[in-house]
Amino acid sequence: MSSWQDLCTARKQRQIDSIPKEWLIQVPPEEQRDVLDVPRKCGLLTARELEITDTDNVQTILDKLRTAVWSSVEVTTAFYKRAVIAHQLVRPPFILLFEQTDRSSQTNCLTEIFIERALQRAQEVDDYLKSHGRVIGPLHGLPISLKDQFRLKGMETIMGYAGWIGRIADSDSALVEILYECGAVPFVRTNVPQTLQWGETYNHVFGRTTNPYNRYMTPGGSSGGEGALVAMRGSPLGVGTDIGGSLRIPSAFCGLYTLRPSYERLPYCDAVNSQEGQESISSVLGPMTNSLEGVKIFTKAVIDARPWRKDSLCVRKEWNEREYQLGDHGGPGAKLCFAIMWDNGVIKPHPPLKRALEMTKEALEAAGHRVIDWENHRNLEIYKIGVSIFNADDGTDYLADCALSGEPLIQTMSPVTDAHEYALDQPLARTILGERRHLTAYELWQLHREKRALRKSHLDHWEATVSRTGTGRPVDAIISPAVAYAACPHGCNSNRDDFYTSLCNYLDYTASVFPVTHVDKAQDRVVPPHEFRNHEDEAVYKMYDPELFHGLPIGLQLIGRTLEEEGVIAMTELVVEALKASKQT
Amino acid sequence: MSSWQDLCTARKQRQIDSIPKEWLIQVPPEEQRDVLDVPRKCGLLTARELEITDTDNVQTILDKLRTAVWSSVEVTTAFYKRAVIAHQLVRPPFILLFEQTDRSSQTNCLTEIFIERALQRAQEVDDYLKSHGRVIGPLHGLPISLKDQFRLKGMETIMGYAGWIGRIADSDSALVEILYECGAVPFVRTNVPQTLQWGETYNHVFGRTTNPYNRYMTPGGSSGGEGALVAMRGSPLGVGTDIGGSLRIPSAFCGLYTLRPSYERLPYCDAVNSQEGQESISSVLGPMTNSLEGVKIFTKAVIDARPWRKDSLCVRKEWNEREYQLGDHGGPGAKLCFAIMWDNGVIKPHPPLKRALEMTKEALEAAGHRVIDWENHRNLEIYKIGVSIFNADDGTDYLADCALSGEPLIQTMSPVTDAHEYALDQPLARTILGERRHLTAYELWQLHREKRALRKSHLDHWEATVSRTGTGRPVDAIISPAVAYAACPHGCNSNRDDFYTSLCNYLDYTASVFPVTHVDKAQDRVVPPHEFRNHEDEAVYKMYDPELFHGLPIGLQLIGRTLEEEGVIAMTELVVEALKASKQT
Repeated sequence: MSSWQDLCTARKQRQIDSIPKEWLIQVPPEEQRDVLDVPRKCGLLTARELEITDTDNVQTILDKLRTAVWSSVEVTTAFYKRAVIAHQLVRPPFILLFEQTDRSSQTNCLTEIFIERALQRAQEVDDYLKSHGRVIGPLHGLPISLKDQFRLKGMETIMGYAGWIGRIADSDSALVEILYECGAVPFVRTNVPQTLQWGETYNHVFGRTTNPYNRYMTPGGSSGGEGALVAMRGSPLGVGTDIGGSLRIPSAFCGLYTLRPSYERLPYCDAVNSQEGQESISSVLGPMTNSLEGVKIFTKAVIDARPWRKDSLCVRKEWNEREYQLGDHGGPGAKLCFAIMWDNGVIKPHPPLKRALEMTKEALEAAGHRVIDWENHRNLEIYKIGVSIFNADDGTDYLADCALSGEPLIQTMSPVTDAHEYALDQPLARTILGERRHLTAYELWQLHREKRALRKSHLDHWEATVSRTGTGRPVDAIISPAVAYAACPHGCNSNRDDFYTSLCNYLDYTASVFPVTHVDKAQDRVVPPHEFRNHEDEAVYKMYDPELFHGLPIGLQLIGRTLEEEGVIAMTELVVEALKASKQT
Repeated sequence: MSSWQDLCTARKQRQIDSIPKEWLIQVPPEEQRDVLDVPRKCGLLTARELEITDTDNVQTILDKLRTAVWSSVEVTTAFYKRAVIAHQLVRPPFILLFEQTDRSSQTNCLTEIFIERALQRAQEVDDYLKSHGRVIGPLHGLPISLKDQFRLKGMETIMGYAGWIGRIADSDSALVEILYECGAVPFVRTNVPQTLQWGETYNHVFGRTTNPYNRYMTPGGSSGGEGALVAMRGSPLGVGTDIGGSLRIPSAFCGLYTLRPSYERLPYCDAVNSQEGQESISSVLGPMTNSLEGVKIFTKAVIDARPWRKDSLCVRKEWNEREYQLGDHGGPGAKLCFAIMWDNGVIKPHPPLKRALEMTKEALEAAGHRVIDWENHRNLEIYKIGVSIFNADDGTDYLADCALSGEPLIQTMSPVTDAHEYALDQPLARTILGERRHLTAYELWQLHREKRALRKSHLDHWEATVSRTGTGRPVDAIISPAVAYAACPHGCNSNRDDFYTSLCNYLDYTASVFPVTHVDKAQDRVVPPHEFRNHEDEAVYKMYDPELFHGLPIGLQLIGRTLEEEGVIAMTELVVEALKASKQT
């Protein structure tokens, strides 16, 4: 039997071999941090291919496909080429970084590259339009990238485990079946961290993915391959997953839009996962894209396909147009009341986040909405329950998957300390949780009782805001940072990143992320230290350096109620329009 | 500290004291098995009170309340009196039965009796109508009985545990809050078995409830107090719960209509429960009533109240009128295709059940619908997973609640063998499960994986029936026995009862129960023995005695998809109309 290292090396070589030689580019020097513009300058893409791939609005792409202005083959080809360019760029410039520990690895945003199969599907879609005179479905001809969890029949799904190399799927995931029914063209799969439980993207098989805004930085995780790829316009829309922030962290770090739907609104069936069978806090899937239109189009298309036909866990709830028309928030044109969570009381956000929140508040007020302060409610208790549930098997699941090949469980996302003996727990979690151990079923049930009581308590707290809003309704949505900082250096996000996002996973609140602005070293100065609440809060404070963070995107999170996908999309549209209007004045 | 026996005796005395002396009746001799007609003959109820309480159709009652033809005070008084009559009748006639082991206990269908409080609420409701000229809500003035799990502020919720005596609720259950908003009048609470995990109704505090069709028989359980009470017309509508059949078994045994909704469609928040925190197979609540109209009215009223405002787990899914108009089944007036599960392959149903299924098939065909045979799919595997999950804590939860007072865990529902040392497991479960032990969290997760795979497999199996229906759709609904027999003698239902019902709990299929006919000793003859599949199958076969079972109601189950409450109610209406039409010809 081969060593896990040999398995990984061979698998990486197969990936390299799957790239046409003519799509290799002259990569910029490792010192170049920002690589966003390389596709436009490297000479590989034609003007038409640049026009196609620079089109952020997914509706525009779909309109041109529907009217045969663009064929799916040319759109897929254009995005494929740009994806492969991105793939060559978002390897970490280690010279800049640290001592090299994994420099030999091919690091990148893609895992599976299957050009022939994707183009064949695109041709099929084009032929259908030609012969039937109508589209297959609402995503007709659109290339869609998939996180390395969504099984494609006849292909491997490796999910960052050396031991999963060679596992060929005998069927498609429910989502993939639905994407086919909708006329889409799945065309690449993207990188993840080992175990999926990190806010960065590194594994032993495919290596590390970096942030195209600044390769010194992580794109976040666990949907970090999607984050980097979509930010590079190597895909018009990607599908990621989220159990603690894995859609929202990379979306915020890479300047994208996303939606974290509630448990089981979208079909996760037959996608692979970590800790399968852990049903206390469910992972969910969602879109990552450069346009909010894309978020709505994807979500509505998948729901309209009645995913409960294929996924027995999927909620039988049709797309609710009344809710999308803000029927639960005063109706179209009504003035809303938003609450801003400036600081969750656990980690104080960096200055650029504060500025982004202020910009949003001003824009909303200028648009006639009301904005009040959110009062935090038991955030740390909620966090504690969530982490306790994730730890309930004391790592049994992760260790079993590592044991398949003998690869070690990765202990940190830092390039210099990979595989050292640091404990997996972050200090705060260790402080509040005590020693880890494998829980019994009865003990897990007691955690469920606590979680249930906290969800009820938080719901009552939210409902009680009706006394402060002036609208006759409770706060319509909460706006908060997605992460307390913009993207950060590799290794620094390991376990300090999920306090703002995981709240929604534990409470099952629907949440979106939208980009607001970029870090500006001139405006976003270092502020004097505050009284630190914990080790992470101190570390986060000290991490901020205006020079280092300059230019990174800043995303915020909009939090709505459980199973309120339609309303959250509509409210995000309203916020984004307000921000656009305010920038124009 | 008092012994648990003293606690129970004192509590029973308080219950007796809460009954007005003038409502005590001359109870018929213990030899009289059928007590259904006693309220009409005992002389306590006036002609008007009989008219009110004999009104099965909940819509009629609501119409008369809305138009002030009847006041809520008089309707509540009438049902209260009849409830108290029922309470005196459905104690077991032990002379007929067995040696007496618990004869001294006051056995009955009620737990909490709070006449003054209920009449005060009824007066408030009447006053509202008078002063506002409109109803409070869709359940205006309707007395509603509640299983002894739904907390009422300021009152005990005992749920059959001696150790819970004296636990005063500091708030109402979410459901109770909503019932108040809807204008209803909660007026009694009803009996349950200890632990709730039995298809009969007996506990050490309030004793045993019997079946008013035949007091030799159990009313089923765990919502058996409701079953007996509603069958006696002591309540126009009761609320029970169901985790393995606890709504459907007593509804079938007592000739009632019910709906077992999917997980979290209706608000369970702050109702007490067994094994709280066990979230793998959720208990659900539903209505039990003498009219199918009542099922729809209750379900729609609670959903229209937007229960997700109060219950963080409740599915945000509005009442879907399109689904109620059978939009997923061809639309109004379409011909449907039903599949009959004549025999689940585990327990062969008694002859009366077979006749009820045949009657239903003929009625549906006469109405122009198609009826095919259901092909069973992995029923025993599904059952095994479900029982394994319930056993995951190896009884820790039940034993903890018993330990509060020192009362023993009840080992059987048989009056002669209570508290003996029989193992809790039924033989079949022991055969297929092996030795019980407390599982780890990781082991529980592995059961979830198996359960998820089985749900997917069953869904695919159902979808594949599209090739056999001739409608272009998969089978619209499955019709099956609720239990393999009509109500049976006390102690005989202990663990042989839930193979047909629990399938829907494990797969989370929405299901209704509706009465079809009664056992007729002339028609429902004993059939020759078949090849027995297991110990229970043999015991069930041997239990059938046409003389003994004569006159008992026979209910069937209609099974639809997950979260398809609207469609299941509408399809049940269609079946009930077909049966009515067929009886008239």
